[in-house]
This record gives sequence, C-alpha cells and structure tokens, in this order.
Amino acid sequence: MHRLIPATALLAAAVLATPAFAQFAKAEDAIEYRQGAFRVLGHHFGRLGAMANGKMPYNAATAAADGEVIAAVAKLPGTGFVPGSEAGHNTRALPALWKELPKVKELNDKMVAETGKLAVAAKSGNLDQLKAAFGPAAQTCKACHDDFRKK
Amino acid sequence: MHRLIPATALLAAAVLATPAFAQFAKAEDAIEYRQGAFRVLGHHFGRLGAMANGKMPYNAATAAADGEVIAAVAKLPGTGFVPGSEAGHNTRALPALWKELPKVKELNDKMVAETGKLAVAAKSGNLDQLKAAFGPAAQTCKACHDDFRKK
Repeated sequence: MHRLIPATALLAAAVLATPAFAQFAKAEDAIEYRQGAFRVLGHHFGRLGAMANGKMPYNAATAAADGEVIAAVAKLPGTGFVPGSEAGHNTRALPALWKELPKVKELNDKMVAETGKLAVAAKSGNLDQLKAAFGPAAQTCKACHDDFRKK
Repeated sequence: MHRLIPATALLAAAVLATPAFAQFAKAEDAIEYRQGAFRVLGHHFGRLGAMANGKMPYNAATAAADGEVIAAVAKLPGTGFVPGSEAGHNTRALPALWKELPKVKELNDKMVAETGKLAVAAKSGNLDQLKAAFGPAAQTCKACHDDFRKK
C-alpha cells in the first residue's frame, strides 16, 4: 500500500490530529506510526497496570518513569488515523472509526486527559494514588477498543 | 516466536536498559517495542529534518513539538535490545549488535544526548539553531545503522 494521501485528506485529518502531527507521506506510514505508538504505550501501560494490580512489586521510580512515557506517547497515535489509512498493514481499526470521528476524538481526548492524571499519580510515589488513577485510564483504552478495534 | 526471556537475561539487559525499562515477557514484545519506538521516532525526526533541510516550510510550533517527542522517545528503543531478541519478527538488527553491546550503549547514549540538544534547538524558534543541531543528531542515528542494522 503506497498510496499518497492528498493534501485535502491531510487537512481533513485535523479532526483527530493537531496540525503539528498531521502529516504522513503514505497511508502505511500512518498505520505503522499509530501501531508503533500503541505498542510503546501498551508496554508501559501494561507494566504500570501490573504494579497497580499487585501482579508485580511496586517500584516508585519505575512507576514514575512509565507514567511519564505513557502521558507523552498517549498524545501521538490518534494522529495516525488519517483518511486513506482505513485498511492494510494488518490494521485492527474497524471501518466504524472513520464514520464516527467526533466520538473517536472525544475518546482520544479522554485518554490523553486520564493518562495525564495517571502520570501525576505515578509520580506521587504513593501506590494508592496509582491504583486510583489506573482504572479510569484503562477504561479510556477499553472504550475505544470495544467500539473501534477488531476483537 | 514466543520464547520467554529468562530472568538472568533480563538482568543482563541492563547493559543497555535502565532498570525502569528492562522488562519484556516475550522476545517478540521486545522486538515490537523497539520497532514501534523507532517508527515513532523516525516520523518526527523525518519531519524535523525536512524543515531543517528546507524541504518543508519551517513551522516553529511543529518543530518544537517534534523535538519534544524525539527527545522523549529516543530514550526508549535501546531498552528493547534484550538478549534473546536477536532474531525473528523481521528484525533488521544485525547479530553484531549483541556482540558489541558496550559500543552500542555508547552510540545509544550519544543519540539520547544529541536528540536532547535537538529538542532545545527546536524549541528556540530559530531555524538556524535547528539546522545546526539536526546534523549531529542525524549522525548518531546513522552511526548505529551503519554498523548494526541490515541495509
């Protein structure tokens, strides 16, 4: 898949993307970008969750570092859902995503907000604060996966 | 490839990784993590380079945002080169990488340092500063690719 995304499509992508991030030369670049960002996000989120849920010993420094990466990287993948990148490259995004962009944007904004709070909680050095912030953040991941990602 | 990385291997991985980032359940997780981080890094680095090299109009806000992402994400992929993740999942890492870990760590540290300087330059709002910082940062990418990545 080497189709160029026309400039008009890139402008339309501003629905999800801030202007600073709304440029991909090819559709597959956009898909690989969002997949890469989600992969990094998932790794750090998974480890923070393991600590929050008692499946891994709590380490305050690790938790703080994970929270910082999560908050920074959570801002990125939404920008990869540009028009023209609906299919190919093993994307698990469902066609519905492009039909409900305002809802997707709302879910994306919630994820950014909750992961920002999660980073603050993770930096507190207090496990109870981490536990309290983890659930709402995880819920924002699940909300989008439930409706817009292949099972 | 679903081989579990033994705990001893994870400890050895501290050659490249800070303790905060040295944990992957499976080798393929480590490979996908570093590939994902490099993908995100490459996207933002490519755009900043296009601005630095006059192939794209300079936009100070975009440049600053790209620089910030680059500096944050540059710290991540090195942690994915854990022992046991030498092959599989279309990795382009050469076997030599695991045989010269001290050199790889040195190159990785240089990349982190130069991308940190690049972020500062990108935030300055001054295109000449961006241009001056871009070359040395790009050189740290190339140095590792030359020796440790398949052509």
